[in-house]
Amino acid sequence: MSRTPLPAGSVIGIIGGGQLGRMLAMAAARLGYRTVILEPDSQAPAAQVANRQITAAYDDEKALADLAGACDVVTYEFENVPVRAVEWLEARAPVRPGSKALKVAQDRLLEKSMARDLGAQTALFAAVADRAELDAAMAATGLPAVLKTTRLGYDGKGQAKIVRPGDADSALAAMNGQMAVLESFVHFEREVSVVAARGLSGDVKAFDVAENAHRDHILHTSTVPSSLGAPAQAEALKIAAAIGAHLDYIGVFAVEFFAVRDGEGHRLLVNEIAPRVHNSGHWTEAACAISQFEQHIRAITGLPLGETARHSDCVMENLIGDEVDEILATATEPGAVIHLYGKAEARPGRKMGHVTRISPKTA
Amino acid sequence: MSRTPLPAGSVIGIIGGGQLGRMLAMAAARLGYRTVILEPDSQAPAAQVANRQITAAYDDEKALADLAGACDVVTYEFENVPVRAVEWLEARAPVRPGSKALKVAQDRLLEKSMARDLGAQTALFAAVADRAELDAAMAATGLPAVLKTTRLGYDGKGQAKIVRPGDADSALAAMNGQMAVLESFVHFEREVSVVAARGLSGDVKAFDVAENAHRDHILHTSTVPSSLGAPAQAEALKIAAAIGAHLDYIGVFAVEFFAVRDGEGHRLLVNEIAPRVHNSGHWTEAACAISQFEQHIRAITGLPLGETARHSDCVMENLIGDEVDEILATATEPGAVIHLYGKAEARPGRKMGHVTRISPKTA
Repeated sequence: MSRTPLPAGSVIGIIGGGQLGRMLAMAAARLGYRTVILEPDSQAPAAQVANRQITAAYDDEKALADLAGACDVVTYEFENVPVRAVEWLEARAPVRPGSKALKVAQDRLLEKSMARDLGAQTALFAAVADRAELDAAMAATGLPAVLKTTRLGYDGKGQAKIVRPGDADSALAAMNGQMAVLESFVHFEREVSVVAARGLSGDVKAFDVAENAHRDHILHTSTVPSSLGAPAQAEALKIAAAIGAHLDYIGVFAVEFFAVRDGEGHRLLVNEIAPRVHNSGHWTEAACAISQFEQHIRAITGLPLGETARHSDCVMENLIGDEVDEILATATEPGAVIHLYGKAEARPGRKMGHVTRISPKTA
Repeated sequence: MSRTPLPAGSVIGIIGGGQLGRMLAMAAARLGYRTVILEPDSQAPAAQVANRQITAAYDDEKALADLAGACDVVTYEFENVPVRAVEWLEARAPVRPGSKALKVAQDRLLEKSMARDLGAQTALFAAVADRAELDAAMAATGLPAVLKTTRLGYDGKGQAKIVRPGDADSALAAMNGQMAVLESFVHFEREVSVVAARGLSGDVKAFDVAENAHRDHILHTSTVPSSLGAPAQAEALKIAAAIGAHLDYIGVFAVEFFAVRDGEGHRLLVNEIAPRVHNSGHWTEAACAISQFEQHIRAITGLPLGETARHSDCVMENLIGDEVDEILATATEPGAVIHLYGKAEARPGRKMGHVTRISPKTA
């Protein structure tokens, strides 16, 4: 793997054309790179700011060959890219991060097992393929617990809470026959995340930990600095670095944690790992010299990682559905940084943009 | 003129495809707008991040009709757009800023006369069409003086210094038969500029004054805060507001000043007016919540202007020619924000990008 950074003018392929791809494409442009988006939707946000779109399914072999031929490096903006497509590409072009991280991130069971094996704490969990395994799992985790499909879950989809044993049948039915994992319900005080990057030379840099609040299972706000103390912050970084090294990861990734009150401080339980730039890192574009998007581009092109220091405190708020309608006309507050994604239709639950409110740095 | 802001998804036309158009297009995208670039060069920086390019000359009537039909508002990124093209467009679509500002900015004589008429100070100046007028002008301004074509001059082009009367012939020859203006040579201590915006409702907001250093007649660095005191800063804003109102200006514009030592403070002499976003305002993307590019998009779409407060001190440095080659690989300094323009070839004197170094705010 070459350690010479790709020169300006090189071409970056991005699989996926959503808002994360869009913000990656803009960060790439600011570093003088060109971008090609592979995305079946011709109206997708990312292609609007990219040099070119290949309009095809993510696993279309002809399109993948086109992408590999056109690009100096390929990345992806979401973790549900078919692993086979990435493996196919890896034989033909550098793909960063590669299929190894993707496989783990696509399977909650692999993900939690890896975290545990690396010495991180998690909720109690057990694999569930059928009713007998669910009974055994409930005995192991205790109730309440949450049953989740091992694959393709996000923003609360593919999840069912089990409060009493009588909830087991309907929860299992909600899995639709897919492999699942039962997780003990964590009585957490805070949800936090760390967005980190691992470069080609194996160095890891993390942005400050963000404290996240959800609404209807969708991220609502990320606040930085978080209310976590320095030891928990250091622990989050240590876990992220271990995960990055274990996965031979190149690029930006996020680790979401439950923070459980523990005396004066907090214990951290790994909840999820996202092998990509992450919604809880959007604040970096407003409060840091270098955003998570630029950091990802730096990592995958072999550039040195940027410094992750904050110049401001901030609160990032997602704009969901028609929340976006009023923001443009009304946001005159000092320090409000608006970012919209160019989506034509404001459907309920759809992430349309975000606003980050910055204020002078206090900690 | 409607005061209702254009909704997200509206289309902005940009005449000119250089780096200013590129940064305007990215700012437009971040507010959810789409962009169409009119630019003859198919490899131009702006089209790489825009929704669409119309590849044609700036005065191609068919292309202008296409642009007017496709866009909800049209703007321009450089002041040498043919006035006739803008007038033609104005009959068919809102053009902001319009032809009035363009006419003044394209003619140094009109520009300086306007500044003087608005009560601002300038260097002594006189129109020069021939040798007899040059003699009269030299008597009026004294020597040394600078002879400049009234039109199409930038970055030191179309200028000749006259130190002694014997320099007059060669200076006049350098004007190539074009109308010129002789300006007394100003022994200034500082060069500063103010980047301001005027909105649809006539409100004006200015970013902090930047102190500029040139090298080979090209902007080298802009430093904020400047070394000017508060009275000179207030005077710069007052002059900018008067100019904006006089020109019925909509959008961002820059006023460049010579600052002449005057007791404890400085007197400001208007040097040039640029009816567009300006190189000496590039620092705003790194040190303010809202950049000059977003401010321009806000103004021309009828959105409320954003607050112009700085969160950081900064020094913006232009990357000229092959200065760009090392920057990507070496810039790991904390607070260094790199921005490259996607130009394929690093020709000598060509603006390839800029880097803004931010540091905690001191003033």
